[in-house]
Formats: sequence, C-alpha cells, structure tokens
Amino acid sequence: MAPVLPDEVASRLKRNADGLVPAVVQDSGSGEVLMLAWMNDEALHRTLTTGRATYWSRSRQAFWVKGETSGHHQHVRSVKLDCDGDTVLLSVDQVGAACHTGARSCFFDELKVDR
Amino acid sequence: MAPVLPDEVASRLKRNADGLVPAVVQDSGSGEVLMLAWMNDEALHRTLTTGRATYWSRSRQAFWVKGETSGHHQHVRSVKLDCDGDTVLLSVDQVGAACHTGARSCFFDELKVDR
Repeated sequence: MAPVLPDEVASRLKRNADGLVPAVVQDSGSGEVLMLAWMNDEALHRTLTTGRATYWSRSRQAFWVKGETSGHHQHVRSVKLDCDGDTVLLSVDQVGAACHTGARSCFFDELKVDR
Repeated sequence: MAPVLPDEVASRLKRNADGLVPAVVQDSGSGEVLMLAWMNDEALHRTLTTGRATYWSRSRQAFWVKGETSGHHQHVRSVKLDCDGDTVLLSVDQVGAACHTGARSCFFDELKVDR
C-alpha cells in the first residue's frame, strides 16, 4: 500500500473546510443509493488501496471501516470522482444493511412532493 | 405554495455550518447517480412544492433551478431524507445531460482501486 494518495488524485480533490469530501455509496447490483458518508485524503487512500470502504467519522473524529463492528462490510467495486472533484461515488457490494437502523438504505423517509 | 418548509421536515434537517444539506440526484429510470448539489431550507421547500429540482449555488450564493439556463431540467419523482436528516436523495426525470460538461452524469472519472 502506497503511503499517501497519488498526486494525480490529491490534486483534483476539492475538500471542504474540514478537509473532507462527501462519498455517495451505491449498491453495485440494484443501483440503490445506500448512504452518504465523508472521506478525508487518508480515508480515500485506504479505500482505494484496500477495496474496503473507509470513511472519516465526523462525530467520532476517527477512521471508520464500514462493517468493522457491524459486519456489514462494503466491498468496493469502483470509485468515481465527480467533474469538479468535490464528491466521490462508490459502487459497493453491500453485506447486510447499510444503515445503522437496520434498513438496507439510509434513505427510507420519503417527503411529500407537490406537482 | 406554502411560504416555508413544514415544521415536521425542518425539525428533522441537520444542516451544515452554512445551513446546507447535500442532495444526491439519481436518474429515476436507470438508477444512475447523476450529480450532487446543495440545498438550504428554501431550496428544499421550492423543490417539494414545485417538483422542479432547485439548489443553492455555493459559488454564486443564489438559488439555482436546474435547467433554467441549460434546458436540462430535472422533474422530481421523489425526495427522501436519510436516517439522520443530513442528506436528501432526489429521484428525477433528467432532461439531457445532468453535468455541465455535457456528460449524462458528473461521475465519469473512475479512480483505480487495488484489491
């Protein structure tokens, strides 16, 4: 594992004031959007070099390998950077529930749209 | 159109220091993740009451109705709030390209994953 994120990736990343980018996580099979988490450079580096989705927990201020405690691992199929470098999209093989509530996806609360 | 976001939605939103939440935008047909943008309360309110995806442009500090200038409208099928209220997921009928580069999706730059 290389010690740091390659320059060609690091130079394109546009981080927020806390040094983070949002990571959108999508199920590789169903296409369902499962969750959104946050990554700093090192979390992205670990994700790219291990194939295991690794985030930065803003509440705990610590790295967080998805599934490490829950067993609900995310095996990373692909990682894409968006056009302006401020968001990444992970396609993952999700083991079990992505959401800490036990739901498959964190997005289960539908709001009413008027048309 | 009600003048403000309903209390039962506003009370669940967890905004960042700038009063914004990220909005993940997914194609209602293909499931492709198209882009990520940002909403304040009023942008979410406008989205829910008009069915037209409306964001807050951080660079221009202004509301931004997707497609207003490009013609690449997003007709909103559904809006979901995530389990901790800090992200929304839009399912949209996308007219044309979602990305300002002309690409269908903003996520076209695949990074190398080692496994």
